[in-house]
Amino acid sequence: MSDPGPHKAGGLLKGRLGEAVDGALARASVSVGYDCRLARHDLAGSRAHARMLAKAGLVSGEELAAIESGLDVLARDVDAGRMVWDEALEDVHMNLEKALTDLIGPAGAKLHTARSRNDQVALDERLFLIEASGRVGALLRDLRAALVERASGAGAAPMPGYTHLQRAQPILLAHHLLAYFQMLSRDQQRLADLGPRLAVMPLGSGALAGTGLPILPLEVASELGLSPLAQNSLDAVASRDHLMEFLSFGAILMVHLSRLAEDIVLWCSSEFGFASLPDSLSTTSSMMPQKKNPDGAELMRGKAGRAIGNLVSLLATVKGLPMSYNRDLQEDKEPLFDTVETLELVLPLAAQMVRGLVFDLERLRAAADDPYVAATDLADHLVLKGLPFRQAHAAVGALVARAMARGVPLRDIGAESLREFCPQADPDVLGALDLDSLLAARSSTPGGTAPASVGRQLEEAKRALEIEAAAADLPGKPGA
Amino acid sequence: MSDPGPHKAGGLLKGRLGEAVDGALARASVSVGYDCRLARHDLAGSRAHARMLAKAGLVSGEELAAIESGLDVLARDVDAGRMVWDEALEDVHMNLEKALTDLIGPAGAKLHTARSRNDQVALDERLFLIEASGRVGALLRDLRAALVERASGAGAAPMPGYTHLQRAQPILLAHHLLAYFQMLSRDQQRLADLGPRLAVMPLGSGALAGTGLPILPLEVASELGLSPLAQNSLDAVASRDHLMEFLSFGAILMVHLSRLAEDIVLWCSSEFGFASLPDSLSTTSSMMPQKKNPDGAELMRGKAGRAIGNLVSLLATVKGLPMSYNRDLQEDKEPLFDTVETLELVLPLAAQMVRGLVFDLERLRAAADDPYVAATDLADHLVLKGLPFRQAHAAVGALVARAMARGVPLRDIGAESLREFCPQADPDVLGALDLDSLLAARSSTPGGTAPASVGRQLEEAKRALEIEAAAADLPGKPGA
Amino acid sequence: MSDPGPHKAGGLLKGRLGEAVDGALARASVSVGYDCRLARHDLAGSRAHARMLAKAGLVSGEELAAIESGLDVLARDVDAGRMVWDEALEDVHMNLEKALTDLIGPAGAKLHTARSRNDQVALDERLFLIEASGRVGALLRDLRAALVERASGAGAAPMPGYTHLQRAQPILLAHHLLAYFQMLSRDQQRLADLGPRLAVMPLGSGALAGTGLPILPLEVASELGLSPLAQNSLDAVASRDHLMEFLSFGAILMVHLSRLAEDIVLWCSSEFGFASLPDSLSTTSSMMPQKKNPDGAELMRGKAGRAIGNLVSLLATVKGLPMSYNRDLQEDKEPLFDTVETLELVLPLAAQMVRGLVFDLERLRAAADDPYVAATDLADHLVLKGLPFRQAHAAVGALVARAMARGVPLRDIGAESLREFCPQADPDVLGALDLDSLLAARSSTPGGTAPASVGRQLEEAKRALEIEAAAADLPGKPGA
Amino acid sequence: MSDPGPHKAGGLLKGRLGEAVDGALARASVSVGYDCRLARHDLAGSRAHARMLAKAGLVSGEELAAIESGLDVLARDVDAGRMVWDEALEDVHMNLEKALTDLIGPAGAKLHTARSRNDQVALDERLFLIEASGRVGALLRDLRAALVERASGAGAAPMPGYTHLQRAQPILLAHHLLAYFQMLSRDQQRLADLGPRLAVMPLGSGALAGTGLPILPLEVASELGLSPLAQNSLDAVASRDHLMEFLSFGAILMVHLSRLAEDIVLWCSSEFGFASLPDSLSTTSSMMPQKKNPDGAELMRGKAGRAIGNLVSLLATVKGLPMSYNRDLQEDKEPLFDTVETLELVLPLAAQMVRGLVFDLERLRAAADDPYVAATDLADHLVLKGLPFRQAHAAVGALVARAMARGVPLRDIGAESLREFCPQADPDVLGALDLDSLLAARSSTPGGTAPASVGRQLEEAKRALEIEAAAADLPGKPGA
Repeated sequence: MSDPGPHKAGGLLKGRLGEAVDGALARASVSVGYDCRLARHDLAGSRAHARMLAKAGLVSGEELAAIESGLDVLARDVDAGRMVWDEALEDVHMNLEKALTDLIGPAGAKLHTARSRNDQVALDERLFLIEASGRVGALLRDLRAALVERASGAGAAPMPGYTHLQRAQPILLAHHLLAYFQMLSRDQQRLADLGPRLAVMPLGSGALAGTGLPILPLEVASELGLSPLAQNSLDAVASRDHLMEFLSFGAILMVHLSRLAEDIVLWCSSEFGFASLPDSLSTTSSMMPQKKNPDGAELMRGKAGRAIGNLVSLLATVKGLPMSYNRDLQEDKEPLFDTVETLELVLPLAAQMVRGLVFDLERLRAAADDPYVAATDLADHLVLKGLPFRQAHAAVGALVARAMARGVPLRDIGAESLREFCPQADPDVLGALDLDSLLAARSSTPGGTAPASVGRQLEEAKRALEIEAAAADLPGKPGA
Repeated sequence: MSDPGPHKAGGLLKGRLGEAVDGALARASVSVGYDCRLARHDLAGSRAHARMLAKAGLVSGEELAAIESGLDVLARDVDAGRMVWDEALEDVHMNLEKALTDLIGPAGAKLHTARSRNDQVALDERLFLIEASGRVGALLRDLRAALVERASGAGAAPMPGYTHLQRAQPILLAHHLLAYFQMLSRDQQRLADLGPRLAVMPLGSGALAGTGLPILPLEVASELGLSPLAQNSLDAVASRDHLMEFLSFGAILMVHLSRLAEDIVLWCSSEFGFASLPDSLSTTSSMMPQKKNPDGAELMRGKAGRAIGNLVSLLATVKGLPMSYNRDLQEDKEPLFDTVETLELVLPLAAQMVRGLVFDLERLRAAADDPYVAATDLADHLVLKGLPFRQAHAAVGALVARAMARGVPLRDIGAESLREFCPQADPDVLGALDLDSLLAARSSTPGGTAPASVGRQLEEAKRALEIEAAAADLPGKPGA
Repeated sequence: MSDPGPHKAGGLLKGRLGEAVDGALARASVSVGYDCRLARHDLAGSRAHARMLAKAGLVSGEELAAIESGLDVLARDVDAGRMVWDEALEDVHMNLEKALTDLIGPAGAKLHTARSRNDQVALDERLFLIEASGRVGALLRDLRAALVERASGAGAAPMPGYTHLQRAQPILLAHHLLAYFQMLSRDQQRLADLGPRLAVMPLGSGALAGTGLPILPLEVASELGLSPLAQNSLDAVASRDHLMEFLSFGAILMVHLSRLAEDIVLWCSSEFGFASLPDSLSTTSSMMPQKKNPDGAELMRGKAGRAIGNLVSLLATVKGLPMSYNRDLQEDKEPLFDTVETLELVLPLAAQMVRGLVFDLERLRAAADDPYVAATDLADHLVLKGLPFRQAHAAVGALVARAMARGVPLRDIGAESLREFCPQADPDVLGALDLDSLLAARSSTPGGTAPASVGRQLEEAKRALEIEAAAADLPGKPGA
Repeated sequence: MSDPGPHKAGGLLKGRLGEAVDGALARASVSVGYDCRLARHDLAGSRAHARMLAKAGLVSGEELAAIESGLDVLARDVDAGRMVWDEALEDVHMNLEKALTDLIGPAGAKLHTARSRNDQVALDERLFLIEASGRVGALLRDLRAALVERASGAGAAPMPGYTHLQRAQPILLAHHLLAYFQMLSRDQQRLADLGPRLAVMPLGSGALAGTGLPILPLEVASELGLSPLAQNSLDAVASRDHLMEFLSFGAILMVHLSRLAEDIVLWCSSEFGFASLPDSLSTTSSMMPQKKNPDGAELMRGKAGRAIGNLVSLLATVKGLPMSYNRDLQEDKEPLFDTVETLELVLPLAAQMVRGLVFDLERLRAAADDPYVAATDLADHLVLKGLPFRQAHAAVGALVARAMARGVPLRDIGAESLREFCPQADPDVLGALDLDSLLAARSSTPGGTAPASVGRQLEEAKRALEIEAAAADLPGKPGA
């Protein structure tokens, strides 16, 4: 290599390199097409950084004024969708830096003082995700509220409860809906648990080792509402476990929603016929004009796959990387953005479906009143008569087999057969095993399906939502 | 189907079915080969359940005494590895139930009163994972302690800090080690956050709908140290998100360990030569007698793949299942057990490697003193002289390029070149940019690499471990 | 390190290392618990290797005789399940080598001449997978045969065809079953395509670089039925893409089987009631004696998750490894074995279920004769009358809406409404749109559902199976 | 629902539904933002379909002329990037259909005759992937050519061969490069194997059941170069295994590239110093002006994660879906497009890096001449003297340990020690074990590292590329 003269440097970042980056690498390096989603957060971080630099005496008051007014202009451009992102400048950070320098001249070039793209992007991603978690958390809470509303409206309406997609025991429709409320409540907790791990302030970590310039990181943190400061600068630029944790939260939540979706698809089939979606939540076929398809539920179910894929993508990308920052980490953004956007798409869709479902309560009741669902209760009756459960189970199983063979419901099997298989039973027990009695009986645990139990579950759910809503109004509760 | 007579029933569970299960299904149904890991937890759950049944008057005092003495015998057999698991009995629950009945007769058959395999296995898995989380948590804490020990012993020894696997800036070896401490501390937090979601009591949920028998679930919960009771019985038997969350914790932790492993593999290479493992932590080649391979680190890195795979396995299995229990959920156990066992294998291995690594401090220092690592600090110096950072960056980049072209370290580039490229610089600045000064300068953030900062990081880490150790001694802190 | 004297060496492999491997690494290094599945293949490879060594003059005739008789003994022990695997010897290779040396003395120690564990395990895995592919291929073919049998037996029996789990158009049951035949036929092709990539001979690649000893690799290849020789020794020991390809085949196949499983679960529900499984392929509940659950189908569906997880596990493990062999690759075996065993478990289960399903043909026909499924055909009728399809679609859609609003089947909507919405239609068209006519009409493509088309599909399927069966009888067609 | 009058229908597809689709579902249903990538293929399919309709008499010659001229206009708009995609029209198919109808009036509405979106999108995806496979295949071949070029240029230059990232034995640089050629050649085969499974013609399958309109599917197939016709219409619209197979190919290929990337990152480190990338393929740091980072290699390595994630995403999405088409399948496109685009980005980047790497041959040779790499050859020498390999291995291991303890290379250990540990050795053997002799010796297998062997490997590689290039020039070889 011959001795180069001083750089004339058109490009922003050449360092010691003599040539511009080449075609294939240039294309692979471009991220502004997606990381422009960080623009508002990058600007907010820059503003806080600039104010700190002024306090620290690293930029003058005039320079700060210029920087702030420039950032204001850019923020308005971003909000208005007027920014033109230049792929030649690679990423959102360089685009904004260049735009600022174009606007306000040399003061713009001072903004990168004591800051590296490594800690800058770490900050931007945290600010983005804190905000996104807040939105996702609110949408999730609304979906839970929708489940509570419908459960509340369903009263004591029964439906068949399934295991193995076989009718097992009658349950309340409200009970079924509240099971999803429980799953989603744990998802909400997981999101809230992530909050403190997100709210860490990485700026000042520099490229990896911290900085020797006399900065005031607590000032930046305070302005941005973050706490604490990152306790290890290498970790601050090298780690992405907070993103993995969010993607894991998203994948688990989407798996829960895929189950709700499966239920909705089943309920809307001709065969189940338990519910229908309003036309506004259905689509037809491009070929078959009579079709009414539950596309929303299918899309919700299908999108669980991408949420799982996004999680895998990031885990596999980070696996095996040496300390500290490696460029592989550029790949963290698209899975993150995609899962956030998927959740923002799917959660309101789920809430609309939950609110929009029209249940056929007659059909649900008829299906709940399956001829053989009282079998467990008959066995329990025998237990109360002193028969060991396993013997009771065997005896009732045989009785059910006979009833099926004769094509009659269990309750019509007759006193003789009952006596033959279950001599311990009260002769009139079968008459007492009607649907409402079966339901009311399951009250020995708070989680059971008895109307009284479900009523209490509903009250608990409402109370939980109220407490969360009150807490969410407080400042500084990201993702709660 | 002809009308069957009462079951003579050799098998335990026939219900209304006339035939025994067939070959392929029988084989696919067998889980005792792996779910025997739940035996102790199943017995503990059964004991608590039996005591409650006695209090509730569903078994007599004599029956309880028989059950408890039978469970004692089985617990001793399990602990001693004497149990013979019979695949014909499918799973651990049926094996233990049969063994108990063989031991104590009819009272054993009463134990399944008000209990289904669905809520039983839900309980067993929770008890298993609470215990396993405790073990994993302790091993993780020990690994973190090992990192702190080594960081403490490393004093102010320098090493090169890397980004992109290129030497970037000098850092402290202790700083590098503590970066892993930080990552693993968040893993420890995630495990602790899971605790309350694990400690839920599902028994009494029955197959799906609760039970009508007059049980006392709080008694069971209290005996097992669980709280609260499951709030929805459908959810209690249908959900596995607490397992997904654990597998996600495990995958993220293994990704962190894979990075530490990558560092160790690099350090032990001839080219880096930064460290070696003791012979007791190395292997040789079956063909090449001179080899000394860091197999432990490679295995640790490789096993991140299985932890990711286990997580995917469960997410994909549960995706799209309708409410409530479906037999697909049998597939939850092997990924769970495998991740637990992987962590119990790898965490002590990691701790041993961390404790056993022999660093070549001379070589680390020499590498840290890379001829060009002072470039950032020179740029920072120019910033303090008033040059905007971007111009400083360009000027120093050009100066470095010249130094490289001449084959001299930056500090030997000479006053003339310095003046040419960086006229603002103090003439003697390069002399001041020696290794120890570079290190000491990075003190403006608590996470920086300056010895004083790292010292404080170390104190914080020690304090955190002490607090956790004290808390872990308290009862009822699973997985903390 | 002090100057060691010559090794007294109790252990097999110490090389230059002075100490035995320590606890945690020793445990992590043990693979014999699972790689003992390679024992037969290891012995076969050793036999071929020994014969070659004799031909090459590297062992004597007597030594060969001793080795062969020793290998015979070990092979019988392995086949009889008599081998006792010693974890202290780590893996199957060292166990067998030690056992051989114990049996026959020094000649055993010559077997490792010109062989490394790296090329040895590469060979063993290939031999294992060639054999396993043959078994899996045969099981897959049998499942396809089962589908053809049932399709053949189903004749022209109709059922509803679904999109979005909504009844769309009537189809033949045989057509539905043959759709799975097609999917599985492509899986069979994928397995066959892998064959040549499996049949490569890696022995002689040594640890990585080949060997300088005068071996005759073609002899070994010929004895083992492998061709060609590995063309690059680094690649031969470092690559696992043939395993990834198999795991990918397995994951795709399991996804196909999960869809068949979903159909079976739906069909066996009370709501569909399209089919039932024989008692021998069902299970009951531990709590609810009336239950008859399609556990086989659920397990088959659930196990798709593990097949996906196994694939991910290996991909993630190999990702980012440097050339050539790294110990991470020990992790290739468990996913491989698990997918093989899963397929060997699930494929016969699927075949039994397909053969055992009892279809309720009356109910299928009734469901196929859905009141509105003729809508597409009415639109097609209008197209033949010259109406553009989009207008026909809209007109029929509106007509269907009226019929639904009136609660009458489309065919009973009446001439007046037909005239109003579809003035172009023949007045008697609705009468012509009976179920059998709808079915017979779909004959314009070979893949359509018309009985004639399905009959031809069936003939093609049978012919394909016959051709494959004939080819599979030929030697040297692994996995075909 | 009240009795609706005939539809006035502004929207394209209402069928029997009375209301427009609602907000959340509408947003979730929009796919034109990504499936516009199918526009050219959709137009090509429509053209072939229209011509067939004319031959079949379903559209008139005039209508065909109008359709074709309209499609021409649209094709030009698409090629020129002038199409404005309307999200209100959901997907690319409806956008193009609407645009055509706007252009040419009623004839456009006839194009959907005998076609459903289900078979249309199945066709489009196949045409897209056939074309994309061709491009990817060519790029892959060029990368393989780049490896061959560099291997050819490297002559007999040695480098250290690694296992466990420890220097193991000297190899040729060309040998190392050709190992990647072998891996990628199998990837190329896998892509070619997919070809016939892609080239199936699904049109005519309708929504699921085929069509009753008198179409001529062979005409369409012939015009589009596809063969055979889909043999089962349900399968044709319901299956995506050809996409899974492509994504699996892509994931495996990316794993291979991640390994090459890891090697490049290592080689470019200061510690290895084996190679450097030209400035045009490097980037610098935003903070540290002296940095020269191998970002291209890191991005290539990192992007393996997304390729794995894309595969998982599709597998998980399709898992458990019932027959036939379900809307979940809309989710097949983004993973497909993303993997195609990733490969189109990364393969040229890899080729440029391979071509651009500047190797430091002196340093490679020096590293290859590691003081202890002759150990295996010394053991082999003892084998040729009659010592069983295991004893030879132990003896040489001990000798190496002594040499290391003394800090001398193996070749300088001295006759006395040699005699002590290896009395069977020729006294002057160590002198003969120079680097070039070690290399030349490994010629017993075609895959070994001896210059003669590598030379033959290189010839084979060149011949393979020539044959493929000749075949790729032939028509009808998609993805070969």
